[in-house]
Amino acid sequence: MQTIAVIAPGAMGSAVARRLAENGVRVLTSLTRRSAATRARAEDAGMTHAEDAEIVAADLILSIVPPADAAALVARLAPSLASVVKKPVYVDLNAVSPTTVHGIAATIAPSGAPFLDGAILGLPPKPGAKGPRIYVAGEDLAPLLALRECGLDMRACEGGVGAASGLKMAYAGINKGLRALAAIVVLGAERAGAGAALRAELAESEPELLARFAAGFPDMMPKAHRWVAEMHEIADFLAPDRAGGQVFAGAAEIFARLAASEGEADVVALLAFAEAAGGSSRTR
Amino acid sequence: MQTIAVIAPGAMGSAVARRLAENGVRVLTSLTRRSAATRARAEDAGMTHAEDAEIVAADLILSIVPPADAAALVARLAPSLASVVKKPVYVDLNAVSPTTVHGIAATIAPSGAPFLDGAILGLPPKPGAKGPRIYVAGEDLAPLLALRECGLDMRACEGGVGAASGLKMAYAGINKGLRALAAIVVLGAERAGAGAALRAELAESEPELLARFAAGFPDMMPKAHRWVAEMHEIADFLAPDRAGGQVFAGAAEIFARLAASEGEADVVALLAFAEAAGGSSRTR
Repeated sequence: MQTIAVIAPGAMGSAVARRLAENGVRVLTSLTRRSAATRARAEDAGMTHAEDAEIVAADLILSIVPPADAAALVARLAPSLASVVKKPVYVDLNAVSPTTVHGIAATIAPSGAPFLDGAILGLPPKPGAKGPRIYVAGEDLAPLLALRECGLDMRACEGGVGAASGLKMAYAGINKGLRALAAIVVLGAERAGAGAALRAELAESEPELLARFAAGFPDMMPKAHRWVAEMHEIADFLAPDRAGGQVFAGAAEIFARLAASEGEADVVALLAFAEAAGGSSRTR
Repeated sequence: MQTIAVIAPGAMGSAVARRLAENGVRVLTSLTRRSAATRARAEDAGMTHAEDAEIVAADLILSIVPPADAAALVARLAPSLASVVKKPVYVDLNAVSPTTVHGIAATIAPSGAPFLDGAILGLPPKPGAKGPRIYVAGEDLAPLLALRECGLDMRACEGGVGAASGLKMAYAGINKGLRALAAIVVLGAERAGAGAALRAELAESEPELLARFAAGFPDMMPKAHRWVAEMHEIADFLAPDRAGGQVFAGAAEIFARLAASEGEADVVALLAFAEAAGGSSRTR
């Protein structure tokens, strides 16, 4: 029986763990100092608590944590990884830049544990539905691609360590950058008294984009706070490009405003635009 | 017979003029100090040269010039507009910000000529095809909406002077801002070795966006130089919003780079991405 450690049991981590557990994998996680709610979610997903010494004895370790925690997790596990004889494959699946991933790889390297760069694109797997695409990049991808047998949509990403993270940054940059752009422009149109005209024009000439905004605005409001850091990470990813730094600094700025109390009127305006757009696209 | 002055006979101006001339309108323009090619294009479109004294005697004056020339045209015509008894309606149809439009309106006001704010969305009218949407905003729109009888797709834009320009800025901001975003992100993915992976992922999960990029990249290269000023105009339009200023400063920056010799490698990379994307979408 294969043993896989999934850290941590967040929304994505616990959903991936559940899929693995349902397919006969023994899934470990780390619940030290976690809340009762997190412990309950982990247990419900079929995950078992383990100390770090047991976690590094797993066949695979999947790191699925908030971007800011990715490097700290590796720093914590590196001594245990160095002391164990049979090394697990360590996979970083987080929304971090290739630069951050190379730093993580460098922290792990002395332990001798194989390292893979990974990226999860799409929403957490749900019962009965196809899960997100999970890309991996690096030298020996076979142990990860084998998880296709366990209900995960594993993909090989060419280009070596850094390419999967680059793919994640680029994909999130398009998806979330477009929402930032749309929010900024719609708010500008509303200030100029042209909000309704813009909505009518988009309904006629760009119905796909309008439908995207109508669904995207309500979805992004509760996530805007979290996306601020992700926009900064994408700006770092694009760093040699001054234009990229500017655009994603602006994206971070609008998400920060929408997440703060000063942005309340903007949130109301965008949700009203989305509701009217949803209405107009339904009646088309 | 209605007389309409269309200044200047550029690609858009001459196409609008042709449509009007074909529908029985006498179309004047200003050809002083214009090249032989421009004179030939104007003549071919059915436009007749007139001095400013005759232009201000027209029923309507449509200003269709490069954004940077919009204010200068009004300054030039204002004295003649003040001296004529029967005032023409002056319509600014340029891609300028509401602030610029309010400045133009203020320049005209002392002459007593009615002023309308306008915006052209879409490509120049072509023979046999439906033309662009031409929005007008202001007090008495009837003389402009009547041009529907002359083959133009005239639209009323609520919100008063500034709203049509705001609509144009917002629409161009979405359309061209998305291309800037896509160019920046695709170049970042290529640098990280993830260009092909991004293309494959978009083909699967975002085929509409990928098709948009595949068509949009080749189209924008010859226009990138011109779009730099338009991005700065949109940044001005969004001015109270720091995020908008940042995003469109970045958009101006990427278009400037693609238009300059230092951006040659980037142009090549984006065109290759577009060609491969077009290929992959054709084989889908």
